[in-house]
Amino acid sequence: MSKLPETFYIPSGFSFGAVSSGVKVSGKLDLALVVCDQPAYSFGAFTQNVVRASSVDWNQQRIGTGRAVVINSGNANACTGRKGEQDTETMAQRVAQQIGCSADDVFVMSTGIIGEHLPMNKIESGIEQVLPVLGRDELHVKDLAAGILTTDTFPKVVSKEFQSESGRYRILGVAKGAGMIGPNMATMLCVLMTDFPVGPAAQARFINAVEKSFNSISVDGHTSTSDQVILLAPQADSQSESQTIQFFEVLDQVCQDLAKLIPSDGEGAQHLITIDVKGDQSEAELKKVAKTIADSPLVKTAVFGADPNWGRIVSAAGYSGVPFNPEQTSLWVNGELLFQNGTPVKFDAGKVSQSIRDHFDCSIVLEIGSSDHGEQNSYRYWTSDLTYDYIKINAEYHT
Amino acid sequence: MSKLPETFYIPSGFSFGAVSSGVKVSGKLDLALVVCDQPAYSFGAFTQNVVRASSVDWNQQRIGTGRAVVINSGNANACTGRKGEQDTETMAQRVAQQIGCSADDVFVMSTGIIGEHLPMNKIESGIEQVLPVLGRDELHVKDLAAGILTTDTFPKVVSKEFQSESGRYRILGVAKGAGMIGPNMATMLCVLMTDFPVGPAAQARFINAVEKSFNSISVDGHTSTSDQVILLAPQADSQSESQTIQFFEVLDQVCQDLAKLIPSDGEGAQHLITIDVKGDQSEAELKKVAKTIADSPLVKTAVFGADPNWGRIVSAAGYSGVPFNPEQTSLWVNGELLFQNGTPVKFDAGKVSQSIRDHFDCSIVLEIGSSDHGEQNSYRYWTSDLTYDYIKINAEYHT
Repeated sequence: MSKLPETFYIPSGFSFGAVSSGVKVSGKLDLALVVCDQPAYSFGAFTQNVVRASSVDWNQQRIGTGRAVVINSGNANACTGRKGEQDTETMAQRVAQQIGCSADDVFVMSTGIIGEHLPMNKIESGIEQVLPVLGRDELHVKDLAAGILTTDTFPKVVSKEFQSESGRYRILGVAKGAGMIGPNMATMLCVLMTDFPVGPAAQARFINAVEKSFNSISVDGHTSTSDQVILLAPQADSQSESQTIQFFEVLDQVCQDLAKLIPSDGEGAQHLITIDVKGDQSEAELKKVAKTIADSPLVKTAVFGADPNWGRIVSAAGYSGVPFNPEQTSLWVNGELLFQNGTPVKFDAGKVSQSIRDHFDCSIVLEIGSSDHGEQNSYRYWTSDLTYDYIKINAEYHT
Repeated sequence: MSKLPETFYIPSGFSFGAVSSGVKVSGKLDLALVVCDQPAYSFGAFTQNVVRASSVDWNQQRIGTGRAVVINSGNANACTGRKGEQDTETMAQRVAQQIGCSADDVFVMSTGIIGEHLPMNKIESGIEQVLPVLGRDELHVKDLAAGILTTDTFPKVVSKEFQSESGRYRILGVAKGAGMIGPNMATMLCVLMTDFPVGPAAQARFINAVEKSFNSISVDGHTSTSDQVILLAPQADSQSESQTIQFFEVLDQVCQDLAKLIPSDGEGAQHLITIDVKGDQSEAELKKVAKTIADSPLVKTAVFGADPNWGRIVSAAGYSGVPFNPEQTSLWVNGELLFQNGTPVKFDAGKVSQSIRDHFDCSIVLEIGSSDHGEQNSYRYWTSDLTYDYIKINAEYHT
């Protein structure tokens, strides 16, 4: 299964690529590098897990500027104590020596098994090998996207181009993630590149883009130790507000398109479930309801079983911790009204079931009542269904 | 699989039994009744789901005294609107008419499919049939326990006897629950009976017993619409404090033994996982960590796969929202130290894996560090593993 786009919009100013360092025993690409031609601004969002990979700490302390991102897959270098911290620093130093910058301008990402030390001889020789093979074309985007995968079944690339007052710009993102996906940055890595010059004040807008995309997906609700999203952009002295707004609209779309690919590739997933929760509650509350539905194994198995079992969805909303009035609550699955103002609706279960079976995408729309009738908000969240293959992949991985 | 005890300690003053009303198409027992000879004090704990079965509302408004509990299985009468409320009231009224008490003294419990109306003709004739067949012996306990089951594979009965200054007393509990089990009362029903006279002030102690037992288990983290625990006890004018303390110690044990049977019978469960979290954090915080571990599909599939994948356990603790110091964190699985003060320990993975495989019970002990070194607390939580059969049961149930 490949979901690679037909056209790649590749921003100028970046080179990238990947090699096989031998960390993955399969011999697949596992060491990737992104280098900016010029010093760039960098924006980051990081896992909120208390137990964090040393690379997360390293990057978070250095975000602001940046020149390169080095990524290894197959080993997360997490829960590895002091030696793990040294290994992260060594990775940054080796890249810095080769491209001629400070180690403080090199970000490090590691993904894979938790609790094992990196085989540093392989990593270091991988870093030496990758620099000569960097490039700027589609083939190298594909290598980069492949080089960061673990249990993913397909590489994840989204790119867009937009016309602004001052010229044409591009945003390119590559991401990985399939399991251990909970919100707040899952075992999820993403590197975003753009040639649109962004000022350093844009961090809040960047975080908002991440919140509405990578922090609004789950596969199993398990927030990992290693998740990071990093955006690299040319340094701008100034940029018109209207252009910046335009840039962030496109960035939102790139992030959401990339984020959706993760539960689409959720371990064992046979459905991408899009959950829209509407009500006059706050966005944070609507998100909490959506996330609770998304994390319910009973909802996820119902979708896998093509079962329009709306009781599981409504009852999951009910234990989210968000107050609402069940008698003002209505539910649609794949556009079909199943539950209206607290009462079951007669519907053709066979038809809804067939519709779930026939489509990879499954839509759940829940309107929740409340006591005061303010403005209607809406929050969108994505997850995968829960299948036999999820159990297979996760009961048989490692030991 | 039967886990019924060899000896039943049956409190005096109660009669009980069950019949097949036809709600379950299998023809199994599905309508149960418990009647107290005398007006009793009643204590209740109820689901915290916003979406609640009408029987939960009915009971919660009437808890304090009581004469009878009528329970139907096969249909939860939840999300059934006004008609559902009327049906609950009708059930209470029919029982009240037959035993000669006020409908306000009759509790109602319903468990099974959500969103379908009760077939009231079957329920009402079941209520007529069950009264003549009530009894006070083991056989009737077994009927009662069987009559409240849904996807459970075995009936759940725990009873204990204790000697107090003023005589010998007994506590008998029957419970049901196998899926849609999250904390805060899951699709979980329990009726407790005792001949120990308890004053009405004991509600707080009762809630504490429920908190440490039925609110400390999960199968899938999905809190249901229907969960209830009700205790019926003779009305006491006064009771010595020491005797009451003794009673609640025994009640704690009965509740915990019953609660553990639920994840033991968790849908598809092949392991009962006992999670002990220790630290100088508050009990509520330790519970939050334990619950997060218990609800992680990655932890649950690792136990199913007999995989000592401690990274999943430690990282689940890390996203619980409770602050702790990973460098003071240690983990044991089945008594084997796997992770010590933030660093992996060399251990025999084959041996730990074999130990998980060989035992139905799996023990996870996590000590979490913290910044200030106060008194050490501990919290215990129970869950089941996540298996192919969970998916099978829940993807194929209903439609």
